[in-house]
Amino acid sequence: VRLVGTHLDGEIVASCRQRHYHPRLRRALPPGVLAYDVGEVGLAFRGAEVVVSGVNSFGVRWLGQTIGPHLRPGQAIIAVTKGLEAGPGGELRILPDVLAEELPAGIRDRVGLAAIGGPCIAGELAARRPSCVLYGSRDRYLAERLAALFRTGYYHAGTTGDLLSLEVSVALKNAYALSVGMAAGLLGRAGGPDEAGAGMHNLAAACFAQACTEMAALLRAVGGDPAYACGLPGVGDLYVTCQGGRSWRLGRLLGLGRSCDEARSALAGETLEAAACVQVMGQVLPVLEACGAIGPADLPLMRALVGVVVHGHPVELPLERFAHAPEPGG
Amino acid sequence: VRLVGTHLDGEIVASCRQRHYHPRLRRALPPGVLAYDVGEVGLAFRGAEVVVSGVNSFGVRWLGQTIGPHLRPGQAIIAVTKGLEAGPGGELRILPDVLAEELPAGIRDRVGLAAIGGPCIAGELAARRPSCVLYGSRDRYLAERLAALFRTGYYHAGTTGDLLSLEVSVALKNAYALSVGMAAGLLGRAGGPDEAGAGMHNLAAACFAQACTEMAALLRAVGGDPAYACGLPGVGDLYVTCQGGRSWRLGRLLGLGRSCDEARSALAGETLEAAACVQVMGQVLPVLEACGAIGPADLPLMRALVGVVVHGHPVELPLERFAHAPEPGG
Repeated sequence: VRLVGTHLDGEIVASCRQRHYHPRLRRALPPGVLAYDVGEVGLAFRGAEVVVSGVNSFGVRWLGQTIGPHLRPGQAIIAVTKGLEAGPGGELRILPDVLAEELPAGIRDRVGLAAIGGPCIAGELAARRPSCVLYGSRDRYLAERLAALFRTGYYHAGTTGDLLSLEVSVALKNAYALSVGMAAGLLGRAGGPDEAGAGMHNLAAACFAQACTEMAALLRAVGGDPAYACGLPGVGDLYVTCQGGRSWRLGRLLGLGRSCDEARSALAGETLEAAACVQVMGQVLPVLEACGAIGPADLPLMRALVGVVVHGHPVELPLERFAHAPEPGG
Repeated sequence: VRLVGTHLDGEIVASCRQRHYHPRLRRALPPGVLAYDVGEVGLAFRGAEVVVSGVNSFGVRWLGQTIGPHLRPGQAIIAVTKGLEAGPGGELRILPDVLAEELPAGIRDRVGLAAIGGPCIAGELAARRPSCVLYGSRDRYLAERLAALFRTGYYHAGTTGDLLSLEVSVALKNAYALSVGMAAGLLGRAGGPDEAGAGMHNLAAACFAQACTEMAALLRAVGGDPAYACGLPGVGDLYVTCQGGRSWRLGRLLGLGRSCDEARSALAGETLEAAACVQVMGQVLPVLEACGAIGPADLPLMRALVGVVVHGHPVELPLERFAHAPEPGG
């Protein structure tokens, strides 16, 4: 195993090299794990069977340009970045496709492309805690081969050929985790639990349920499988993020009344994939609506998130819209 | 509003009467709320438009027998009890139907029957925190009428005519909340978070996702709408229960290695609807399997819960079975 840091990871790489200790994971590296600077990527990739990309969503194009010249035919790339992009016409694009676009034409079709979704906090995986995930690739054989390569007694990996549904689910859950965090922020703003101990779990749960309903609707609208909302990459990943993850914490700050900029400053150093995903959805929703894939009143929670994150509206959740039975056939 | 206590609620009724204070909700009662002993039920019901039943699932038949003689044609009964029953042939029965069965034949068809589902911790509702719920009745008009009666600016009530799916969802979420609690118990058993802070949120989230997947499958198997697993009565209610509710706490004790009896003792005074629901499912699953509604390998999490709760097996979750893509069309 060889770790390659970006230009932002100098300290981490230095610690891995000098002390064999990963400061973010707060854990000693197993013997045999080597660390490289991005300038040494060619050296690091030499003979590698699989390349795992863990850059954030803003770095995906850079990554493709950076690693492209060093890839060899037959290598596989696993993208664990969670995010989405809006194409020039407002169409939704998944990040493995964005990454592939940046690879040199001569190599693009000669490497395998896969992704991983599901609830998997890195620190818990490093601690060898039990985790269940899903490996996805349009090449189902590749997904199976990679899952078999990484599967252990504590790391349970299933596979799917539905890369679109996998990627849309894991990106959307970040956006929707904002709303569950907002409930915690609104509680804080209301002065916290009252004298009888009443919090705002009902509100958080209503947002959580609406998030699942809307994830299913969005999956359907973009041609994916709505059942993913109910599985590991949807509700599972949403649940784990709501246990204090970055997106949940950003939502909490917004619920407390901070502006998006203030919240960003307070979380300095953290990648805010949730806000990025909401911004993308702000571009994508009008296009989905124009082509009739969603109605003008659909997705009230996502529209509220776009209002807060893109337009700076105060946090006001349209709760009366969340109290509904599932759509027939939904 | 008139509260009627059962024979187990003597202290609560006394407090409500003497101090106008509800000791469980830890809150003063609004003026005009009166409290009655069960022996005064006829007096309490006089002129009442709606009767709300909040007994636990073990008390539903008793309740029907007790209130039956005092009901008047045109009254509506709302059952907020969450549970299920196995009929003599192992068929699944929802509690509003069990309650109706105990009513005198002359009144049974002349009262309305409805239920409420969705994430609604009573103490938060009493604090007028925002909550979203679903009113269900086979008589859709009744559901609408009742929701309109109770709806407020903080209590958002939608309606459904699909009483079966509503009731199955809210009962199953208690059973499945056990599994999410078990993850917390297993963490405690492993000595808690390790030196780097790694917990077992990945495991809890994998159980949560598998719970949603299995709720959808069970809804389909009993002729309900699988979409309810993704809505307020399914995933929403499951989420709120996992914030430290009774079923979650029972699961945590089981995960810590306590036997079911020990866990029951530790939670003395709490109604263990989760264990009751798992016991019912232990009777229902073989029947669903015999008629081909589920396969012998389906529902691995519920089967594991039956093993622990009914057969006293140690907590061992078949995680390799949880790492899968959604079933096509699931």
